[in-house]
Amino acid sequence: MSEVARRAGVAMSSVSRVLSDHPDVSDGMRAKVMAAVDELGYKPNLLAQSLRRLETLSVGFLVGDISNPLLAQIAKGAETTLRDQGYSMLLTNSERDPDLDADHVRLLEQRRVDGLILSLAQEGHEATLAALRDLDIPVVVIDRVVPDDIEASAVLSDHRTGIRAAAGHLLDLGHRRIGLIVGQPLRPSRERQLGLADALAERGLPSTSIVMEGSLSQEHGEEATRALLDADDPPTAIIAGGNQIVIGALRELSRRGVRVGADVSLVSCDDVPMTELHQPPIAVVLRDNELLGSTAAELILRRIREDDEPREVLLPTTYVPRESVAPPAAAAPQPKAPAERKSRRRSGA
Amino acid sequence: MSEVARRAGVAMSSVSRVLSDHPDVSDGMRAKVMAAVDELGYKPNLLAQSLRRLETLSVGFLVGDISNPLLAQIAKGAETTLRDQGYSMLLTNSERDPDLDADHVRLLEQRRVDGLILSLAQEGHEATLAALRDLDIPVVVIDRVVPDDIEASAVLSDHRTGIRAAAGHLLDLGHRRIGLIVGQPLRPSRERQLGLADALAERGLPSTSIVMEGSLSQEHGEEATRALLDADDPPTAIIAGGNQIVIGALRELSRRGVRVGADVSLVSCDDVPMTELHQPPIAVVLRDNELLGSTAAELILRRIREDDEPREVLLPTTYVPRESVAPPAAAAPQPKAPAERKSRRRSGA
Repeated sequence: MSEVARRAGVAMSSVSRVLSDHPDVSDGMRAKVMAAVDELGYKPNLLAQSLRRLETLSVGFLVGDISNPLLAQIAKGAETTLRDQGYSMLLTNSERDPDLDADHVRLLEQRRVDGLILSLAQEGHEATLAALRDLDIPVVVIDRVVPDDIEASAVLSDHRTGIRAAAGHLLDLGHRRIGLIVGQPLRPSRERQLGLADALAERGLPSTSIVMEGSLSQEHGEEATRALLDADDPPTAIIAGGNQIVIGALRELSRRGVRVGADVSLVSCDDVPMTELHQPPIAVVLRDNELLGSTAAELILRRIREDDEPREVLLPTTYVPRESVAPPAAAAPQPKAPAERKSRRRSGA
Repeated sequence: MSEVARRAGVAMSSVSRVLSDHPDVSDGMRAKVMAAVDELGYKPNLLAQSLRRLETLSVGFLVGDISNPLLAQIAKGAETTLRDQGYSMLLTNSERDPDLDADHVRLLEQRRVDGLILSLAQEGHEATLAALRDLDIPVVVIDRVVPDDIEASAVLSDHRTGIRAAAGHLLDLGHRRIGLIVGQPLRPSRERQLGLADALAERGLPSTSIVMEGSLSQEHGEEATRALLDADDPPTAIIAGGNQIVIGALRELSRRGVRVGADVSLVSCDDVPMTELHQPPIAVVLRDNELLGSTAAELILRRIREDDEPREVLLPTTYVPRESVAPPAAAAPQPKAPAERKSRRRSGA
């Protein structure tokens, strides 16, 4: 710090004020001090937290799949908040390849970002966890669970509550066999399965749902829907646990001439224009994706600037019923009670 | 270079071979030399192009709107190609704010990327052009025209040919009044307008189309559709020049109960699942977005590694007719000839 003061031709106290981001610093003073810091080529690890921040004012964001509009909205929310606070965001895309997550953590660390926001491809990937343990900058994970020894803040979506409401609506309409298509074995998939189980348990119904785990892709949505409809006892309702999964599901339903709402009820997760503009409109479990991103940005800024403790924020989801959800087709021409008995008998199989 | 050789304990020729990326270099030798380079803290501008590359192996990508699936696909194509060649990609998002483009050019330059791929928010933005003139790393622009004194390679989409085919199809079906909704006054908008003009000129028809210029947003699509339908002489066909524009257009059409295909013909640009899954499916002018991205990546790598001249690559678009395009509704109950006469009379107004 004394070298910086000498180089800048200012008092030590001025350097200290600039480096601690004191409000009473003129722009000219800040420029002089930072120029000296730059010229002397200080390394971040030799300097205080506040200096490191002043050096880069950037946050890295590891995204799992940038071509998914959900993640694009999260990234947008994060960037808007960071930019409002004078930070730039550098984004990398892992294409859901966990090895790339590990590479990108190291890459962004080398580029001296002040913090990392992570949407990890896998939760228990050893190389990524090792890279995170080596980091000396704050980390915020989005909708993932990481081991306790990694000091990460987390912003989580309450998928469980939204899916519980959606499944409850289907069950109350008389559906007894629900197909749930989810992505990778990550927190969102687990929470969605728990939500379905909750809805069944609340009604004292046996668990006759079929869960198809795979990936958050159109291909998985298509294949899982095919498998569900080809089953001996096909479900009368499908919950697509992701905005890419629902596209594949719709493709398969349309190919078979299965009418959404009339022949099979359909619920999706994460609104996209397609679910709203579809005829009939598709019921969804909504969440505020930009809020997820902006909350992640706020958490990382608090850790960078205030040295805040890691903390967890749970954000709500909401079930929005639409015309794609209706009583099961088989029940329509029959009185309700026998249809329900029939369904229950089936469920026992 | 001699300092590096001394520090690494190797011959000058070995340093030179490593720095010029000669194939006959062992991994051990490369590691030794690069460690010395790192320890000595060489600045990129003091070293050869090849060394700079070895220092960062990263390319920056300035995206205009990451929440647009088109740009997400382009980014994905670019990243896949860069990664295959051992490069990382750092992405920034300007939210279509040209001031951020200028900031991000400087940010990524500071982060020492080896090259920049740009999807600029504006073509003639002075601060951005100034930042680009200051750069000493190669640049590739995507679907933009920049002044000649900026030595940029360019990968361009041939929007004109695709729109000419789409408009030609509409005109041959009897449509005489076509509404074209485009985004910002950038190359894609200009080329799309030229394509429509071509189709009219080829058939010796007067220019009776209505062009609505605005932004590549759902809001503009909605407002422009409203204005077109409220016009005294509304168009019988709409070409939505962008995948966000078509979402807004569909929203407005659906609100008014205007049936796509039956009441008004509709063509979109850039396929998204919604256009394919819509009932009826929506005709589109397609392009290969991932190819756009991978071509941009190839161009930047050639400039980084082979010091290639800036060059321009034009990629094709294809018109795919679908059920959203049909003869004009007014013509249906009448014999064809009078309807055409009527349309022509209208066009003259």
